[in-house]
Amino acid sequence: MALALHGGAGAISQQLLSPQRQEEYRQGLRQALTVGTKILTEGGTAMDAVSQTVVSLENCPLFNAGKGAVFTADETIELDASIMCGQSGAAGAVAGVKTLKNPILGARIVLEHSPHVFLVGKGADEYGLLHGAQQVPPSYFETETRREQLHTFQAENRIDLDHNDDAPQTHSPVNLGTVGAVALDQEGNLAAATSTGGMTNKEYGRVGDSPLIGSGTWASNSTCAISCTGQGEYFILGAVARDIDARMRYGGETLEQAAVTSLTEHVMIPGGQGGLIAVDKTGKVVMPFNSLGMYRASWTNLTGQSHVSIWKRSPSAGASTR
Amino acid sequence: MALALHGGAGAISQQLLSPQRQEEYRQGLRQALTVGTKILTEGGTAMDAVSQTVVSLENCPLFNAGKGAVFTADETIELDASIMCGQSGAAGAVAGVKTLKNPILGARIVLEHSPHVFLVGKGADEYGLLHGAQQVPPSYFETETRREQLHTFQAENRIDLDHNDDAPQTHSPVNLGTVGAVALDQEGNLAAATSTGGMTNKEYGRVGDSPLIGSGTWASNSTCAISCTGQGEYFILGAVARDIDARMRYGGETLEQAAVTSLTEHVMIPGGQGGLIAVDKTGKVVMPFNSLGMYRASWTNLTGQSHVSIWKRSPSAGASTR
Repeated sequence: MALALHGGAGAISQQLLSPQRQEEYRQGLRQALTVGTKILTEGGTAMDAVSQTVVSLENCPLFNAGKGAVFTADETIELDASIMCGQSGAAGAVAGVKTLKNPILGARIVLEHSPHVFLVGKGADEYGLLHGAQQVPPSYFETETRREQLHTFQAENRIDLDHNDDAPQTHSPVNLGTVGAVALDQEGNLAAATSTGGMTNKEYGRVGDSPLIGSGTWASNSTCAISCTGQGEYFILGAVARDIDARMRYGGETLEQAAVTSLTEHVMIPGGQGGLIAVDKTGKVVMPFNSLGMYRASWTNLTGQSHVSIWKRSPSAGASTR
Repeated sequence: MALALHGGAGAISQQLLSPQRQEEYRQGLRQALTVGTKILTEGGTAMDAVSQTVVSLENCPLFNAGKGAVFTADETIELDASIMCGQSGAAGAVAGVKTLKNPILGARIVLEHSPHVFLVGKGADEYGLLHGAQQVPPSYFETETRREQLHTFQAENRIDLDHNDDAPQTHSPVNLGTVGAVALDQEGNLAAATSTGGMTNKEYGRVGDSPLIGSGTWASNSTCAISCTGQGEYFILGAVARDIDARMRYGGETLEQAAVTSLTEHVMIPGGQGGLIAVDKTGKVVMPFNSLGMYRASWTNLTGQSHVSIWKRSPSAGASTR
């Protein structure tokens, strides 16, 4: 059994994040890890573990998903999520939802009830409600921190590219933006889930990689489960999650080789920033990223130990895989 | 140089399609092929060839893309398209557009002008207009044939799954639904483009594989260019276009092996129907499908010959690749 989760990768400055704030993030990550680990150790499924881990992260206002998500240019909040089951190969995804308390559960409803895989906009909200998803008023998602961010961005006439490389030093780390989880359960089944609020001040209905099966999320019992975070466009153009699967499936690479090589080739070399979490069928967990930091946590029953981190262990060592 | 195009795959009945109607379809395919072939033989790019070939198919009211697209449950028309350049690896996609005369040119505008890859809804329309795309009133796309289809479907309380396996015999072949093109130009560059109106009577903002990079569309000069058609959900869950690339890239398969195996594994075996067109860097064209028919055409300068087909050459021979 194994569980890994992330709360976004990007230019997280160790200098600008106060010790108290750091502890709040670590607490949010630890709490989500506990939720998922408990499900797995009690014999629950990987699907339940990733769903509830992401629900915990969505409910935490620190992360850019669910409550605490960033505002669009229209001062609305539009949420995207996707989930995939490695056992069945089924998947569900939603984009642009505005009233589902937990978008990841909306994605799971699509997986379980719809003949379709991907629903967007008002229809995705309606479909979730029709199948019992908890509805909240749009104001539920709003936080003053995020509203101030929007106004700052608008005053600067800037669109946050979610994890912008050349963001000024005043770029608050709370702009960072995706959450996700991957799990291996005691039956040997894998699952992956990703959820996001997108970019601060986003316009033109931009959709990133988070709700896209094969880009931001992938799971197959034959290979691994993956959830990505970072500058979504790079992950779409590389179909990164599916690329990692393919490197293992057809190229015989290990999870670590596949994940690091794909991230390097499709994100780092073209000039992007991001990271991902992945677990293979043996319970091996990797969490590579090329940005300054990535909020992340993991647990496996091999060691029984939990692990919560924000920055690289050794900043000079290049792409970390833990 | 090579060009291939499709106008949709599905349960096209040879008995129900009158000779005159067959000839109209062949004429539409031939016209689009001529447009793309002319661009290639005059030294144009693969990107221009696939864009203009798809424009020709979008403008033809017979095919479910652009003018003549099917109606949603709300009696509106919502269009999706994507395009990818094999040379640069850049891509653009739009979903749910309602006012861009040629959605494929909207996708190309995203590729050329936006830092993003995927724009949906009103924002996609606005972005296209901002960059000079031709705007039309929503009524431009409407045809009486499609409106009658919608009313028939609504009377039967049926959602057309686009290429539904168990559709009744009255299921008119004009419900079928996607168009696409792939090309290799004289510089050796590949490109792919796909456009669709989605499903008749679709609800809940369903998005299929057509606008999804790696699912319905993919191009890489290292491997091939692909455009898919059929029951989109199967193509999303298999990330079929990217899977074919990966089989060639990491597994050393030929284009034909990769295309036929991926279609069999991800679409046919799970019970779906569909097809695809693909061209590799040597100019080899394959057009496999497992449905009754696929509107398609191709040309290569190796033979100088054009080829326009609807059904398999030999119905008993299994998946055709021509």
